[in-house]
Amino acid sequence: MATDRMRSVLWKDDGLQLIDQRMLPTELVVMRCETVEQVMIAIRDMAVRGAPAIGAAGAFGLAIAANAFVVTESATVDAFLKAIEEAKAFIDAARPTAVNLTWATERVVQAIKRRAEQGLTVSELVKHTLVAAQALAEEDVDINRRLSEFGASIVKPGSNILHHCNTGALATVDIGTAIGVIYESHKQGKNIHVWVDETRPRLQGARLSAWELMREGVPMHLIADNAAGYLMLAGKVDVVLFGADRVAANGDVVNKIGTYKLAVVAKENKIPVFACVPTSTIDLTFEEGLTIPIEERSEEEVTCIRGVRIAPENCPVFNPAFDATPNQYLTGIITEEGICYPPFNESLAKAKAAAEARMKQQQEL
Amino acid sequence: MATDRMRSVLWKDDGLQLIDQRMLPTELVVMRCETVEQVMIAIRDMAVRGAPAIGAAGAFGLAIAANAFVVTESATVDAFLKAIEEAKAFIDAARPTAVNLTWATERVVQAIKRRAEQGLTVSELVKHTLVAAQALAEEDVDINRRLSEFGASIVKPGSNILHHCNTGALATVDIGTAIGVIYESHKQGKNIHVWVDETRPRLQGARLSAWELMREGVPMHLIADNAAGYLMLAGKVDVVLFGADRVAANGDVVNKIGTYKLAVVAKENKIPVFACVPTSTIDLTFEEGLTIPIEERSEEEVTCIRGVRIAPENCPVFNPAFDATPNQYLTGIITEEGICYPPFNESLAKAKAAAEARMKQQQEL
Repeated sequence: MATDRMRSVLWKDDGLQLIDQRMLPTELVVMRCETVEQVMIAIRDMAVRGAPAIGAAGAFGLAIAANAFVVTESATVDAFLKAIEEAKAFIDAARPTAVNLTWATERVVQAIKRRAEQGLTVSELVKHTLVAAQALAEEDVDINRRLSEFGASIVKPGSNILHHCNTGALATVDIGTAIGVIYESHKQGKNIHVWVDETRPRLQGARLSAWELMREGVPMHLIADNAAGYLMLAGKVDVVLFGADRVAANGDVVNKIGTYKLAVVAKENKIPVFACVPTSTIDLTFEEGLTIPIEERSEEEVTCIRGVRIAPENCPVFNPAFDATPNQYLTGIITEEGICYPPFNESLAKAKAAAEARMKQQQEL
Repeated sequence: MATDRMRSVLWKDDGLQLIDQRMLPTELVVMRCETVEQVMIAIRDMAVRGAPAIGAAGAFGLAIAANAFVVTESATVDAFLKAIEEAKAFIDAARPTAVNLTWATERVVQAIKRRAEQGLTVSELVKHTLVAAQALAEEDVDINRRLSEFGASIVKPGSNILHHCNTGALATVDIGTAIGVIYESHKQGKNIHVWVDETRPRLQGARLSAWELMREGVPMHLIADNAAGYLMLAGKVDVVLFGADRVAANGDVVNKIGTYKLAVVAKENKIPVFACVPTSTIDLTFEEGLTIPIEERSEEEVTCIRGVRIAPENCPVFNPAFDATPNQYLTGIITEEGICYPPFNESLAKAKAAAEARMKQQQEL
C-alpha cells in the first residue's frame, strides 16, 4: 500500500521532495528543497507539518548541508562537524517549539560524531549524513507500520470509524498513526467507513485527512465537528481513533482541541476510544496530563478562514490549540509495541521499555 | 435595554425595515421592503431568518398588501380578503417548510376575517391588518421579555455562560430567547461573560451572536465549537444556554447540530444546561425527540465558507442540520410561563396550559 503513495517527505535526485501542505486540498504541489535555506523556509512556513514529518525534513536538511560541504584535502573533520552543527542550529530555529525537529537533527549530529570518533574521513562522513537521515525516516515508517497492524486488530469488519484532526501520511514520513490504522484496516478488506471530523479551527480534517483518505480510496464522509455526537447517539460510530501530541505516564492524552469532547460523548455511548501514538510520544516524566499549559493560538484562526472574515472586526477570541483528555475516557492506547490498556501507568511503561530494548538491538543511525 | 437596540424586524414609515443578516458580521445593512414582492424575496433569500423574525416579516408583508389595496366605493370586503389571501400564499411560498411563517400569516388573516364578520369596512380592515401584524410582533417581544426574566433568575452573578447558535434579537423580533436571558442578566448587572460557540457549519454564533453581544456590550469570547469541552473541564463554564427548534412532550430538545455533544459534556462536568424556548416551540403531540427525522442540508455548507473551498473537490459530506438531545441531559427548560424542571411531561404540559389561558385572556390580534 505505502509503496504506491507519494511520500510527504522523500529524498530524491540529491534533494528533498515535499508535498506542500499549504496548497491542499485544492492543489497537489510537490516542492523540491536543494539548499539548507529552502528546507528551513519549508519548515518555518509550514509547507511541511506534523512532528515526524518535520523531524525527517530537518534530518534531510543536514544531508543537504553535508553534500554542500566542499571536501578538499585540507578540509578537516572538525570543520565538517562545525558546518553541520551550524546547519542544525539554522534549521532548528525554523520552529523553535517543535521538539521533534531538534530531536531529529540532534540524532543525526550524534550519529555523525560517533562515526567521526570511529575514524571516518570527511568524504565518508558526508555520505553517512544522508544514510543517517534516511535511517531516521525509515524508522518512522517502520514504527507507523507496526502501530497500524496492532491497531487494525481492534477494528471490526464493517466498522464506522470516527477520526479527529490529521494523523496520516502527511503528518508523518508515510502511513501515519490513527490514519495508518485506518489504511491498514482498509487494506485488510475490513469494509470500513470513516467519519472525518473537519477539526476547527485549522480544518486539518477537511483539508488534509479528507484529501488523504479520498486519494487512498477509503470510503468516508466529511462532517462538521458538531455532527459527531449525533452520529454516536444514532449508533453510527463503532470506534473513535485519534493521535496525540503527548501522552502522560497515567494515560492522559494531550491532543488537538475537541478530542476531550469526542471522548466524553463516545464513552457516554459505550463506543471504544483509542489514541494511536508512537512510544516516543509517551512521556513517563509527565505524570498527568491535566497540568499541562495549553498553547493559545492566534485569533485569526477562528475569525478568518483562508483570508475570508467570518466574525465581527475586533471580536474577542479564545483559541486553545489542544486539550487534555483524562485517561478514564480512553479504552486503550495503540503503539508500535502493542496496545496499552488500563492501568496505563503499567502498560505504557512496559511499551516504553520494549521500544527502548528494540532501539538498542537495532543499529544506530 | 431593548428600546435602544434596532429591531431586526420593524414597521417604520409605512414599510418594513429589516437588518440584512446575510451581510453580517462585516456590514450592518438596513433594508426596506415597500412591496409584497420585496418582503417575499427578503424571506426567501434569508435576509431575515429565525422563526419568530420570519413570521413577523410575513405578517408585516400582509400589512403592505393591505395598504396597497385600492379602496374605492365599489371595493368589497370579499375582494379585500381575496387580495390578502393571495398575498399570504405568495409570501408563504418563500419558505415552504418554515412553519412559523404560515402560522403568523394565518393568524393575521383570521384576525381580519373575524373583524370582517364583525362588520368593519374595507378601510377599517386595511388599518386593522397593520394593527394585527404589530400585535403579533409585540406578542413575540413580550414573550421573550418574560422568558428572559425567568431565565435570568438561574444565572448566578459572575457566571460564565456558554451559548450555542444564534437565539438573539436577530432571530426574533427583538430580545431573543437564550440570548434574551443573557441580555437580561447583563442588564441586571450580574457581571456575566459569554463563551460564544461559532456553531459550524453555518457559523451563526460567529456571524450573528458575536455581533449582537458585542453591539450590546456583553463581555464575550468567540470559540471554536471544539473548545467548549476544554473550558468545561477547566471549570470555566457555569451554565449552558441554547434555544430549540422543537421540544417534545417528554423534554427531548431538537436544536442546532452540536447541542447534544455540548449537553453530554456539560452533564459529565455537573454544569447546568437550560433550553430557552417560547411555549409555542413545545409540541405536546410529539412524544419523544429521538424519532424526529433530521434534515440534511447541502454539502457546500461544510466544504465552502463564504465561497472559499476548504475541502477537496467531490468530497462526500454528511451534514445534519439538527440533533435531538435526550431530556436527561437538561437541567430545565426556560419558557415565558416559568422554568420547567423534570419530570418534563408534567411541567411542560403545565406551561403550555398557562400560555393558552393567557392567550385567551389577552385580546385577539
